[in-house]
This record gives sequence, C-alpha cells and structure tokens, in this order.
Amino acid sequence: MQPTRSCLAIVLAAGEGTRMKSQRPKVLHEVGGRSLLGHALSAVAEAGAEAAVVVIGPDRSEVGREAQHWFPTTELAIQQERRGTAHAVLAARESLRRGYDDVIVAFGDTPLVLPETFAALRAGLAAGAAVVVLGFEAQDPTGYGRLIERNGELEAIVEHKDATEQQRAITLCNAGLMALSGARALEILEAIGDDNAQGEFYLTDAVAVARSHGLSATVLRAPESEVHGVNDRAQLAVAEAEFQRRKRLAVMAEGATLIAPETVFFSFDTQVGRDVLIEPNCFFGPGVSIADGAVIHAFSHFEGAEIGPAAMVGPFARLRPGTKLAEKAKAGNFVEIKAAEIGVGAKVNHLTYIGDASVGAAANIGAGTITCNYDGFLKSRTTIGAGAFIGSNSALVAPVTIGDGAYVGSGSVITNDVAPDALAIGRGQQVEKAGWAKRFREASLARKAAKKAAE
Amino acid sequence: MQPTRSCLAIVLAAGEGTRMKSQRPKVLHEVGGRSLLGHALSAVAEAGAEAAVVVIGPDRSEVGREAQHWFPTTELAIQQERRGTAHAVLAARESLRRGYDDVIVAFGDTPLVLPETFAALRAGLAAGAAVVVLGFEAQDPTGYGRLIERNGELEAIVEHKDATEQQRAITLCNAGLMALSGARALEILEAIGDDNAQGEFYLTDAVAVARSHGLSATVLRAPESEVHGVNDRAQLAVAEAEFQRRKRLAVMAEGATLIAPETVFFSFDTQVGRDVLIEPNCFFGPGVSIADGAVIHAFSHFEGAEIGPAAMVGPFARLRPGTKLAEKAKAGNFVEIKAAEIGVGAKVNHLTYIGDASVGAAANIGAGTITCNYDGFLKSRTTIGAGAFIGSNSALVAPVTIGDGAYVGSGSVITNDVAPDALAIGRGQQVEKAGWAKRFREASLARKAAKKAAE
Amino acid sequence: MQPTRSCLAIVLAAGEGTRMKSQRPKVLHEVGGRSLLGHALSAVAEAGAEAAVVVIGPDRSEVGREAQHWFPTTELAIQQERRGTAHAVLAARESLRRGYDDVIVAFGDTPLVLPETFAALRAGLAAGAAVVVLGFEAQDPTGYGRLIERNGELEAIVEHKDATEQQRAITLCNAGLMALSGARALEILEAIGDDNAQGEFYLTDAVAVARSHGLSATVLRAPESEVHGVNDRAQLAVAEAEFQRRKRLAVMAEGATLIAPETVFFSFDTQVGRDVLIEPNCFFGPGVSIADGAVIHAFSHFEGAEIGPAAMVGPFARLRPGTKLAEKAKAGNFVEIKAAEIGVGAKVNHLTYIGDASVGAAANIGAGTITCNYDGFLKSRTTIGAGAFIGSNSALVAPVTIGDGAYVGSGSVITNDVAPDALAIGRGQQVEKAGWAKRFREASLARKAAKKAAE
Repeated sequence: MQPTRSCLAIVLAAGEGTRMKSQRPKVLHEVGGRSLLGHALSAVAEAGAEAAVVVIGPDRSEVGREAQHWFPTTELAIQQERRGTAHAVLAARESLRRGYDDVIVAFGDTPLVLPETFAALRAGLAAGAAVVVLGFEAQDPTGYGRLIERNGELEAIVEHKDATEQQRAITLCNAGLMALSGARALEILEAIGDDNAQGEFYLTDAVAVARSHGLSATVLRAPESEVHGVNDRAQLAVAEAEFQRRKRLAVMAEGATLIAPETVFFSFDTQVGRDVLIEPNCFFGPGVSIADGAVIHAFSHFEGAEIGPAAMVGPFARLRPGTKLAEKAKAGNFVEIKAAEIGVGAKVNHLTYIGDASVGAAANIGAGTITCNYDGFLKSRTTIGAGAFIGSNSALVAPVTIGDGAYVGSGSVITNDVAPDALAIGRGQQVEKAGWAKRFREASLARKAAKKAAE
Repeated sequence: MQPTRSCLAIVLAAGEGTRMKSQRPKVLHEVGGRSLLGHALSAVAEAGAEAAVVVIGPDRSEVGREAQHWFPTTELAIQQERRGTAHAVLAARESLRRGYDDVIVAFGDTPLVLPETFAALRAGLAAGAAVVVLGFEAQDPTGYGRLIERNGELEAIVEHKDATEQQRAITLCNAGLMALSGARALEILEAIGDDNAQGEFYLTDAVAVARSHGLSATVLRAPESEVHGVNDRAQLAVAEAEFQRRKRLAVMAEGATLIAPETVFFSFDTQVGRDVLIEPNCFFGPGVSIADGAVIHAFSHFEGAEIGPAAMVGPFARLRPGTKLAEKAKAGNFVEIKAAEIGVGAKVNHLTYIGDASVGAAANIGAGTITCNYDGFLKSRTTIGAGAFIGSNSALVAPVTIGDGAYVGSGSVITNDVAPDALAIGRGQQVEKAGWAKRFREASLARKAAKKAAE
Repeated sequence: MQPTRSCLAIVLAAGEGTRMKSQRPKVLHEVGGRSLLGHALSAVAEAGAEAAVVVIGPDRSEVGREAQHWFPTTELAIQQERRGTAHAVLAARESLRRGYDDVIVAFGDTPLVLPETFAALRAGLAAGAAVVVLGFEAQDPTGYGRLIERNGELEAIVEHKDATEQQRAITLCNAGLMALSGARALEILEAIGDDNAQGEFYLTDAVAVARSHGLSATVLRAPESEVHGVNDRAQLAVAEAEFQRRKRLAVMAEGATLIAPETVFFSFDTQVGRDVLIEPNCFFGPGVSIADGAVIHAFSHFEGAEIGPAAMVGPFARLRPGTKLAEKAKAGNFVEIKAAEIGVGAKVNHLTYIGDASVGAAANIGAGTITCNYDGFLKSRTTIGAGAFIGSNSALVAPVTIGDGAYVGSGSVITNDVAPDALAIGRGQQVEKAGWAKRFREASLARKAAKKAAE
C-alpha cells in the first residue's frame, strides 16, 4: 500500500452543492459518521499520500478545519473563480512544483473510493502511464463521458453529447478521478485550454494533452458503486447505504451475527468482535468498540462507548460517550449511561440514568435509579462501590459515594455518603386512610355525572 | 391543475375486500396514516374535481363518514347489487345528470394515483376524447386486459383470456380508471350491456361503446406503481412502501438528510424543513411538522407534534398529540410528551413523562421527572416557569405551578405550588444502619445454603 | 404429508463451520429464534420422519442436546473422521439396518427446506425411484454440480470442473439433499468409493451407483432460496431474511397489517391473529402469541408473551417471558413487564417496570411506577387488585399487596399491604425555602465567573 514513490493528493472540495439545499458545505455532510471529505482524505492517506492539498472555495474555513482533522498536514488552496476542474487542480500549483512522483486527484464529494483503488491508480503511474483515469462500467451510461480504449491505452474521453452512436454503446465511463505523473502533471495541466462552449478548463482534457505530448494514458476500472458522487440528499443516502453494506459485510466476515444486517447502522470506526450478536435496529455513532461475545439487543443506540467481553446491552439502551461496560456487565432496557464505568458483572437493568459515575463490580442498580449529576450549573460524580445494591426508584444526589457492599432502600433519596456494608434509607413513612379511595371514587363519579347533567 | 371545466369524480368503494380478512371495510385500511379512500378523494380534489360521489355497499356508513372527512361535499351512492363496475358507476346517475364537463372514475382501493395523472386524464377529454383510459406498461401482463392502440386511438381493450398470441405480447394494460366526457357519460354507460359470461356490466366496455358511437377513446400512460390496487394485506404493504418511497424522496429533495430513508416512516401530511437530520428508525404518525435545522435522533415516534427550529429529539422519544417544542428545545431519551408546550431552549432530557403541561423557556427537567396529571378521573395541568430547575426523579402532582426560576430538590413529590425563585423539597430524611447490609447478605446467603441443603 | 411408509431422516451436522468464526457449532446458530439444526429436524418431522439420526463430530454433545430438543427420539451418530458426505451418512449404518421404507438425507446447515419438499422427495421414492435428488435452478450455476436429466431420469451429476461447455450451460444444479429407498440405501452407500482427488466418499455418487445397479434416480426441483446453505455469517443473514420473508407473508395472509413488513422480525413460533396491526420496527423472540385485534405500536420487543384480544402495546414496550396481557389491557411506552399478568382493561402506560406481579382488571398504574421485586437475593411478588390506582412515580416493595380499589398517592414508597379501597401515601412533606434558588443561582454564576477569571 505504501510504495516508495512520493505522492501528493489534490482533493477538490470547492463545489457549492446547491442541490443539497443546506447551509452546510456539501463535503461536510456525513456518511457513516464521517464527513465526505474525511472519507476522501482518509482513503488517499491509506493509499500512501504523504501530502494533501484541499481545494476550497473562498470563505470556507470550516472545510479547511475538517480537512486538517483527517489529514493534519493538509494544505488549503483557494479557488477564487470557478473555471473548471483543471483550473481547480491548478490552485495547488505551488504544491505540484515541489515535485512528487505521483499526483492523485480525488473529489471531496466522492467518499466511497477505496484506498486500494487509489493505490492501483498509482501503480498505473509506476507502470509508465502519465495519466491514469478511473473508469467504471455504467449501468446506464447516458450523460457520462465514454472512455475509448485501444490496446490497453486510453485513446480519448468522448463526452456523451459528442459521441457517435457506436461510441454511445460503450459502457466504460469516466469517473473523473485520476492520477498524474508528478513529473508531467504541471506540463499537462497548464496545456489544458478553455476553448469550449463553457469556456472552462476541464481535467478530462489531460488525456488528450498527454497523448499529444507522446505520453501514455490508461484506465483503471472500479465498480460503479465506488465512484458514486454526492450532489443531493438522495445521493447522500445512496452513499450511506453503500458504506453500510460494506461495513456490515466486514463485521460479519469477522464473526459477528447480525440478524438483520440491513437494520444495523455503523460508523466508520465501529469495532465489533467475534461471536458478538447484534439484534435488529441498532445504531452505532462514532467511537464504539464491542468486545468478543457481547450481546446487543434490538433498539440500542451507541456513541463513544466501550463494550466489554460478554457484556449485554439493551434492548432500548442508550450508551453515550464515556461509557465503559466491563466484562459481563449489563445495561438493560430504557437505560441511559454516559461518562460512567460499569464494573465487571454489574447490572443496570431497567429505566435508569447513570451519568458521571463509576459502578463497582457486581453492583446491582435497581429499576428507576437516577444519578442526579447536575444542579443546573455543575456536574458532579457518583461512586457506587463493588457489590453495592441500589434499591429501585432511588435518586442518588451527586457528589455522593455509596460504599462497597452497601444497600440503599427502594425509593430513597440519598444525599449523604453511605458507609460500606451499611443500609441507607431516605423516604417517607407509609400512612393509610381507610376507605378514602372509595369515597374519592364516589365523589369523582358524582362530580362527573353532575357536570354531564349540567351540559 | 384546475382547468375551468367542471368535474365530477366517481369513486368506487363498494368492494367487499374479503381477501383482507378484516372486520374493517377495505377502503378504510390505511397507507401513510390515511385511508385508501382518503388518498383517492384527496387526489381527485387536487386534480380539480369539485364534486364527488362515492359508491358504497349497503350498511357502510363508516365509509361514507370517512369520505366526507376528506371531501366534505361527497355524496354517497349505494350499490345495492354487485353487478359490475359500470353498474357501480351508474349508481351515481343522479349526479351524472347534473352535467359536468369531465367525469373521473377512480377506485377507492387504488391510493397511489397522482393528482397530476387525474388532471392529465381530464386534459385528454379537453383534447376531444370521449373516453380516456389509464394504462400502464406491465412487468408481467398476464391476466390484465390489453390496450390495443392505433394512431393514437384506443381501438379496443382485450381481456387476457380472449387475447391472441400477438395481443398477449402487448404489455400496455388497462388500469381500470378512466375519464369520461360528461356530455357523453350517461349515453355511454347506459349502452353498456351484460351480455357476457358473468352477466355483469363492465366499465371496460365504455371504450367499445364510445367507438361504436363514433366517439374518440385514448390512453394515458402511468407507471405501474401508480395504479397498484389493494386487495390483501401484502398488497397493502406494497402500497405503503411506494407511498413511503415517494415521501422520502420529496423530503430529501427539500433538503433534509435521512441517513437511512428506508427506515423512516412518514404520514401523508408530515412536514419536514431544510437541514433537518433524521437518524434511522423514526415513525411519524399524522399531524407532525418539523422546522428547519431540527435533529431527530433514532428510534423516535411522533403523532400530532410540532417541532421547532433547531430542536433536538430522541433517541427514544415519543411525542404525542399536542406536543410543541419551541426553538432549540430538547426532548431526549425515554421521554414521553403529550399536550404540552416546551419553551425555547428548555430541556427534557431523560426518562420523563410530561403530560398536560407547559414548560417555560430554558427550564431544565431532571431525569425521571413525572407530571402526575391524572387522578383516575380528571386530567390536571402542570405549569413550570421559565428557568425553573426540576431535580431528578421528582413527581409533580397536578394541578401545580412551579414559579419562574424555582428549584425543586431531587426526588421530591411536589403537591403545592412553588413560588418563583424558591426551593421546594419534599422527600424523606436519610437514615443509616451501619453494618445492616453485611448482616442481611450473610443471612440471605445462609438461607439460600440451607434451602439448597434441604433439597 | 404423512404417508404410511416408514421414514428415517439422517441429518448431517458434523461440519466444522470454521468460516462462521465462532466458538459455537455452526448448526446451533439461529434463524428466526431457532437453531439451524432445529429447523432441519422440525421439517423432516413434519414430513413424516418417525426416526432421526443426527451425525455429529466428536465432542459435540451440545449439538446432540439441541437435536433432542427438537426431535426427542433423535439418535446421535459420531463421525470420527471427516471422509466425505457418504461416509458421514454411513455413520448412521445401524439405524439404516433397521429397514425403513424411506431415507431422507438432510443437512443441519440448510434450514429453509420446506416439509412439503421433504415429503415430495419421499413421494419420488414411492413412485419407484431408488434415489431422488433435490435440484434447483441456479441464478449463477458456477461451481455447482449440474444435474443431467433425460426422459425424467437423472442420468448423472457432473461437477462444475468436469463439465463440458454444453453441460455448463445447464442451470439445474445439485442441492446435495436427497432421499434414498430404504431397501437400497445401504447397498448404494456402501458401493460408493473414494477413488477421487480428495480420497473422500461423496453422497453425490449415489446416483451413479444406483444407475449402475439398474435402479432409477430422479430429480425434485426446489427454489434456490429453499436450498440455501449457511457457511458464514453473511449466509446466515440471507437465511434469516428468507425465513422472515416467508413468515411475514404468512402473517399478512392471515389478516394482520404490517405497515412495513421488512422491519418486523418474527420467531419460528410467533402467532398473530386477524386484524392485528403491527407498526414498523418490532421484534418477536420465541414464544409470543398475539390475539385478534391487538395493536402493536412501533419499537416493541417481545419474548415469551401472550397478548390478548384488542390489547395495545408500545411504542417502546418490552414484554419479557411470562407476560400475559388480558383483553384490552395496555402496555405503553418505556414499559417493561416480565412474569406478570395484566388484567382486562388494565393500563400500564408509561415508564414502568412490572415484574413478578399480577395486576387486576381495570387497574391503572401511573407513570414511573416500579415493582421492587428483588432484594439482591430473592424475587418476591406484587399483587395489585382490580380497579386499584397506583399514583405516578411510586415504588411497590414486594412482597406487597394493594387491595381492590385501593389508591396509592403519587411518589409513594409502599412497603406494607394496602387495604381494599384505602388510600396509602408514603412520601416526605413538602417544605419551601423562599428565594433559595435565586441565591443559589447567583452564587453558582459568581463561582463560575471567578473560576473563569482565574484561568
């Protein structure tokens, strides 16, 4: 994956994306919990690019920040006017002058190209081509530029509208992405003209220029799903679906069971161990890892959570950032956990909120328990000792510590620390009024009847 | 859409629907939260019909009520005997005599025909045809009547069983729906005979009658998905899927992101703004609107709720009728809200039930809070002031008012009003019994061991 | 389905399943809540097999136990060495010697073959064939053995690698399963040799042997989906999808509405009545029945639960084993019930845990109610009488009985029995500190400001 040739990636991200109908720049929309731009930059990095230039429009500093998040040494080049793709690439002229062996041109709105594919484009350069164009067999080629190959050489790219009947029968189409020999890139790019109806500089013309300079151009084929670009929300959803399809297959290949893969949504970085069972309808935001043998019941929602071996989660659990379930720990139904470690074998089974807390090994948290971690201004921590038992429907007012082996009576409000092995109770005394309910019922019914009669 | 020609729609809704295996009349089954009949009537209304007759079977008053809900001036015509589709249409004879320019014949069990399509049928009449039949290209035409066209005229409709080999190769099929010139409708319909194997009057024969009277008949083509009829639950599910497919595309086209469109279910009237994000697995019953920039996390369920700009909902939220979230308000996980306004920036984050209430701007409702709005007979209201803080696991016993800026201690039961800026606490005193838990544990284990030994 | 001929089923279940990457034997992985092996054994039982031998590898006692769960008289045969499918079948030699009329050879990892198909294989034997091979029309036959038929006889099975160009054009492929005449089975199986590249005994060779002995071999065709085998997790998911597709169609055919069938997951034994409505995203584990007219809202999760006529469940309900909802009972959102009967018309509407309990007819359980059924060592029962009203956010500490018509005040902790028609309250007294919240807010803000200034 990492040849010894040096490599610069130029990622075009200046498109306005008006069809997204969004205040957010198009390349910052997300697939699998990562921006489109993040996908492109991660792929070129994995393909061995050691430098990247992201070409952005004016006033797009947030795109720059996102780029640097995924490829820290990213340089930004601003395309002041929109004069075509070759013009955009030349916004990176300074970087091109530094003389890399390989130059990859990727698109910020085309998130599904695999690192292997970028690496294969580079291999085409290493094999002697000056330009390697990414092509795909289109199911419906209407509208795409056709790639005309002969004897392994790419002879020309013919736009649909200029194509003969015979050329239109060709289904090998131009994906737009390409690799250029670093030694020839500037020569080729600067020779591209704007003598066309739109008066723009088209990267596509790199092929004609290269051939006219006696250089070789070739094609690399990728599946159509890989070169899918995003211009509107429906295409964004298609990209998401392809991302999920791949990720689900990868997770299953590693030995996890997904009862209904089509209902489970992963993020780009979700890690899933062997013999994990995931029931239908689970959602994994970024930063989640699930160790071997864990069981994830249906309708569970995760972000930034670490699930230990043979832990059990859900159904209807929400594990938020900072959640760590240790081995065989359990987070059951209607349970929310955030910023909390749940110890080995500890159980948080039902209708509970655990926030900013640590729960000791084998502790049992009763149904309806709430850690009161926020006073409107500050967050405070709750510490529950190993083997502690928190009776149902209790409120633990943080900061508070429940000692190892301590017991909290059901329905208690606990505001003071509880010593290890002690019992703490904080609730009202039960009182009874005989016959009250019967009288109340009769009075209520009489009132209802009177009201009805009055109408 | 609204030509100046007058238009009567006749909707056939007398079918028994036995294959539905239901106590409910077939046309009252729902797609996208609206009855099949409601879809048909809304579409003809949008296509400009100013009058509608729904033809129903005897003893079907509930069908009539549903019809009048969606098309208030609907007249009902009762088909006493089931003698074929033309016979059913003639149950509307009185209305036909009033002399409309256009007559549309629609089916109560065919909910997906677009208003544009009904309008195009009418345009066919305006262009001079006496009968315009809706046709579709069938993927598998077996069993359907074939439409035989020549020079833009519909020459005949040939039933599958009567078709020649050559005619069976035709894939243009009869959807059954049609438009008739109002001036000719009665003449045509009354000339249709029952001289066939079943002894029924078939609307299909309108074409042959019209042509024998020297009138023109033409075909309008629609996609097969649009003319899908519902006869059993599986076909109902197919209709629902097509409805959802359209609605999801429309929502995305307006600038909302659906991470997994195939898992989001809308109602016919759901409104979704721009830059709304909807995570997978959300369900929108009727009467829901979502303003720009709102975020809807996974596993959320809505009916009759208004979601303000940049509000955040879910995951695992249930918003019931009468919920209004103001701008930037938040309804989090395991939260149920009904008949309640949540003010600007107010937060109801976890495990809470808010019913019959108003929550002021920037108020914070702690986890596990319950508004006790029902005493078994009456519902009462809870009013929470702006900037109030309700400690976790509190019960607010309505009718009750928490003043602006007031503070309720965690775990309180509040039965009396709380003054603005005051603190209210209503909970037991915490007491502790040292070593109790240890003794209880030892006793319990000893009891368990004894029990085991006894077995 | 049950001919008078006797029948032995031999189920091959010795495969190692390494591609599953699992500690669990392959045939114990599940589809529709039942093991692959369970599916195969149930199908052969329904096809009339009165005896079954499951051929397992050494040290696979858990496979044996699972087999006996689904087919109690199952005998186990251990295949010590892995020497091919015919060798595996001969591990059942002792049973074959008992002389059954029909012998079915099924695969433990092929769970979708219908009982009707096994019965049809047997019918082939009854019609005179010594071997009946199950075939399917493959969408892509590459890699499969081709079935060469002439005049209704199966002439040969030709492996893909040995097939001529002409034979490769054949799409009728070998599924592997077959039926053998009991009278000839041993003769045929023992004549199969291992004279091939792998030196294994192939069951496929039964056809050539039978024909060389002058016996008849025929083919029975099944859809490709039916003979789908499971070798990895992705194939397991495909099998699950086919199982669910069938089950959903069957449920709809009986008169239930599934708004989005593709989002509802049943178990092998789920029973669903007529005019049941199931909203999207529901999950039914084993042991669930739903009576006529029940409404199941979205996001509901069931195991071992009985839902009565016209009962209402969800959204977001979890009904665990031992739940019985009587007629018109209601279990609403964020409600968990286990081992509890909910009486006629009783309501458990919100945010509640009911465990080890009985709830009387027409009782009303307020939001946030918790039955405290566990003290860390023992489970105890809660009994709630008919017409009782449990105020919101109450904790009922079991063992405890709430009498008929009794009333529990909101926010109470109930540790003692409550008499019928009485009111019980157990909560703290409300106290108020005027202006406290204002002072707290000011102090908190000042502290925040000071902290910020110090930074």
